[in-house]
Amino acid sequence: MLIDEGLGLLTEEEALELLASAEVGRVGVTIGALPAIFPVNYRLIDGAVVFRTGVGSKLRAASSGNVVAFEADDHDPVDRTGWSVLLIGQAEVVHDPELEERLQDVHLEPFAGGDRSALVRVEPTFVSGRRIVTERT
Amino acid sequence: MLIDEGLGLLTEEEALELLASAEVGRVGVTIGALPAIFPVNYRLIDGAVVFRTGVGSKLRAASSGNVVAFEADDHDPVDRTGWSVLLIGQAEVVHDPELEERLQDVHLEPFAGGDRSALVRVEPTFVSGRRIVTERT
Repeated sequence: MLIDEGLGLLTEEEALELLASAEVGRVGVTIGALPAIFPVNYRLIDGAVVFRTGVGSKLRAASSGNVVAFEADDHDPVDRTGWSVLLIGQAEVVHDPELEERLQDVHLEPFAGGDRSALVRVEPTFVSGRRIVTERT
Repeated sequence: MLIDEGLGLLTEEEALELLASAEVGRVGVTIGALPAIFPVNYRLIDGAVVFRTGVGSKLRAASSGNVVAFEADDHDPVDRTGWSVLLIGQAEVVHDPELEERLQDVHLEPFAGGDRSALVRVEPTFVSGRRIVTERT
């Protein structure tokens, strides 16, 4: 494992495996040229990130086919361990009954209520992951 | 509280209070025009986000005085509750012995080892926060 400043680089396979294990991630978009980050409930389906959203900056980004960043991580403050995965790709709004069915099977349901009927898919063109490497003393 | 699609908007005071309660947040930067998000250990000092970093995209952003996004959140998957705070501001590399001393008092020490001697400060020009509003049935 390549180690850089206390962080070990994950393989793409490891990164996608960790991404599949989490359920809250963060989408990085721009709003009027300013960067913004918002959490979403998501699932990894066939290697792509899928989340629901309502009217707002995430839907605007997807409707415009913007390239967005997606990040998920997990940390244990006691053990001081953790991992993070960054995925970059073009966001798109999808209308796909088969995908909707698969999402029902994996229970993609945002914690927040309200109208989040739009389905956004981010097919990765770049995936990287890092894990905190605990030094053995 | 203004409620929008299952999310309640927090006041700036509430948002900063929650930001002060967490210790891992995420910085949104651009790398060659592509968006990227990386987790950092941080502290809120006098209303500004402060974190340590080493050579890399976060340090480059701060050295260039880039405007960055900073996000922290917390979610309870069982209760389906949670909050998130977004802060936007110009990042700067700081050399400030007094700040270094204060950071020792609040134990800002990245979970990951390695050389993270550069201190980055993000003074917010924009702060917003949202909390999942649980519907009473």
